[in-house]
Amino acid sequence: MKPVRSAACLAVGSELLGESALDSNSLAVTRLLLRHGVVVSEKRVVGDDEGLIATAVSELLERCDLVVVTGGLGPTVDDLTRRAVARALGRQIRSDALVEGWVHERYASLGRKMPEVCRSMAEVVEETRPLRNLTGSAPGIYAEVGEAILVALPGVPHEMEPMLERELVPELRRRAGGLLGAHRTLLLGGVMESEVEGRIRPLWDRLGRESLTILASPGVVRVVLKVVTGGGDASGRLDEMEREFRDVLGDDVAGVDVGGLQEVVVGSLTSRGETLAVAESCTGGLLGASITDVPGASVVFHGGVVCYSNRAKESMVGVPGDLIERHGAVSEPVARALASGVRVRFGADYGVGITGIAGPGGGTPEKPVGLVHWAVAGPGGVEHRQKVFGGGRAAVRTWSVNAALDLLRRTLVACEGGGTGGAAR
Amino acid sequence: MKPVRSAACLAVGSELLGESALDSNSLAVTRLLLRHGVVVSEKRVVGDDEGLIATAVSELLERCDLVVVTGGLGPTVDDLTRRAVARALGRQIRSDALVEGWVHERYASLGRKMPEVCRSMAEVVEETRPLRNLTGSAPGIYAEVGEAILVALPGVPHEMEPMLERELVPELRRRAGGLLGAHRTLLLGGVMESEVEGRIRPLWDRLGRESLTILASPGVVRVVLKVVTGGGDASGRLDEMEREFRDVLGDDVAGVDVGGLQEVVVGSLTSRGETLAVAESCTGGLLGASITDVPGASVVFHGGVVCYSNRAKESMVGVPGDLIERHGAVSEPVARALASGVRVRFGADYGVGITGIAGPGGGTPEKPVGLVHWAVAGPGGVEHRQKVFGGGRAAVRTWSVNAALDLLRRTLVACEGGGTGGAAR
Repeated sequence: MKPVRSAACLAVGSELLGESALDSNSLAVTRLLLRHGVVVSEKRVVGDDEGLIATAVSELLERCDLVVVTGGLGPTVDDLTRRAVARALGRQIRSDALVEGWVHERYASLGRKMPEVCRSMAEVVEETRPLRNLTGSAPGIYAEVGEAILVALPGVPHEMEPMLERELVPELRRRAGGLLGAHRTLLLGGVMESEVEGRIRPLWDRLGRESLTILASPGVVRVVLKVVTGGGDASGRLDEMEREFRDVLGDDVAGVDVGGLQEVVVGSLTSRGETLAVAESCTGGLLGASITDVPGASVVFHGGVVCYSNRAKESMVGVPGDLIERHGAVSEPVARALASGVRVRFGADYGVGITGIAGPGGGTPEKPVGLVHWAVAGPGGVEHRQKVFGGGRAAVRTWSVNAALDLLRRTLVACEGGGTGGAAR
Repeated sequence: MKPVRSAACLAVGSELLGESALDSNSLAVTRLLLRHGVVVSEKRVVGDDEGLIATAVSELLERCDLVVVTGGLGPTVDDLTRRAVARALGRQIRSDALVEGWVHERYASLGRKMPEVCRSMAEVVEETRPLRNLTGSAPGIYAEVGEAILVALPGVPHEMEPMLERELVPELRRRAGGLLGAHRTLLLGGVMESEVEGRIRPLWDRLGRESLTILASPGVVRVVLKVVTGGGDASGRLDEMEREFRDVLGDDVAGVDVGGLQEVVVGSLTSRGETLAVAESCTGGLLGASITDVPGASVVFHGGVVCYSNRAKESMVGVPGDLIERHGAVSEPVARALASGVRVRFGADYGVGITGIAGPGGGTPEKPVGLVHWAVAGPGGVEHRQKVFGGGRAAVRTWSVNAALDLLRRTLVACEGGGTGGAAR
């Protein structure tokens, strides 16, 4: 069997075709696969429709080495993934005593009797391997179709993720000849994609197009380094590539194989035993939400103030009223006062302040929509930055959060004595 | 031409296949289409690869009445949507003086000269209609392929959305025979999907499967009412259906054709001239971020405190230390004190408090992971609720935010004198 190189994610569920929900499972799947040298080349979402699911499975199996299906494995009439997989593979469905035992056991462990409706979860597609679910009740499906692999997993993240790790990763490793991973992702903060492209152009030309991918989102750029040929020294080759890129990118590298700047910052503060508080205006809580997205953030994060009104900036963070009057709420002095003020109020080692105009309204010729000031206060003083971000309200808010996290990260690195961000590794 | 009924979204861009970004454009597209009676039946994401984009376009055009492509229309070598559309339709590309004029004008309006690289954006696919971009530089594509419509738009939300509204909606209306919309979405808060299903089962059986769709996400359920046959009285028919569902669902209906509970709450507070402040622990800022996601929220939202640490709960919101000691930070008395305290500190009409255990760690047998207490303090007193939510850290946090918004919404409705939520319409 050749190593798995390309994969597709197929999310099943009509709720993912509405106005509010996105297939966020694909992010966890992508992260895990990238760690093992597999690139996702296509994503799809289809509703609870047996024919559409089956068509998607067939089309994707023809195009990719691996297809990961999530959702539609539960017990209700809307759960059609099992039947669709059977149809796509041209195989039968039968009930299975072993799998029924798993489901019974799962309910028993919760002190409950298996509802009759759950019997459908004990059905298996012939010539496939049922996958046990240790954190939920719906079993998964593993099938080899020619050289390709099909995995179907429940849509609940904390069921899906451990099953993927336990059931798929060993096979990825086996096919890769023991190779742990042929990818490495450098996370860059405080840079624009176009600027990064210019700086790494010579490396890119020398190493070849296929050796890296640049992924940009508001406020962060990811450079994925890839070793195209497998083999035992892939890790050494990646080390070498990483060194070359770090030489060019320097302190802009925030971390390696991490989820985001918030993870870098929480990790860095944790290892230093220091604490953080934030005061945010235009981001309205998004910075706090981002930081507390990291499990264990409570060790370093005291909390924050969402000071949307000027009155809240004064009363809750202690920004002097005349400062707001003289310079306006969106200004350097107010950003600095927010950072310093929240640091003192929460008794934290570091304070972050953000104030800006997210839009769509509220802009003026001198202070246009997208103008954001942010500052970090720490033992060594207060650092401030400002910028006009584009892309609409949501993008301005995300940019602001990442810009502030990046300034904090750089402040922490500087306090260490000017390291290259390697500590975040 | 028959009315457009089914649509697919195709997002183009390798950055959407990484570990962090999702195709959020599809949500805006879905929202607009649902308003005009069109259901999205499939979503796809492919990278910057001409062949893969072309294949996806061809496959989707065979299956759907409408295909909306976003992204890949910019000027760089990675922007391949124009060429892929030409390939999928079997048509040629030529440069177009009119379209080049648009791009020149756009740059001129920004006081800049058009960079040479942007000349590629003036290329058009033969026998398609180029779409002018008034908020950016990349033009779009409109093509009729048999009875189907293909629209390709830039991936930048504030460019894509107005173009879709301006260029596609008139055609949707024309094909629907002047019908403004044959869908209406009831937003329900504070209910479980399974429970809603049970209550509306008789209506569902009587009206037929195709007349409604239920979309569930953590903390909200959407019931989409559909008039399947077109015609001038669709609106009257929807009014009638809405009445029938409201008779069954009562106060659980939070709003109609709204984006989320935060929109209902901000709208309700705005019309009453009242204000809000929030104190959140386990949600870490997500409640504030959700509220301030609504443009214009600043009129009613003073701000909030993210009190992750116990010390912050005491010093920033005034929760008595002995209350935390006696009952624990995750408890009814602390949730009540958070809501009352933040109301007083910010001088707001209403205060919301949330405290819980989002996990994965921190649970105990008496207080398991997922346990959340929330409370709303207002002129009429303090209301409290609690629940154990499942689904992992992210789901628990989203559930908590929506549960708190829903309690606030119900409190506001109750103060009005027990309305049925119709005011949020």
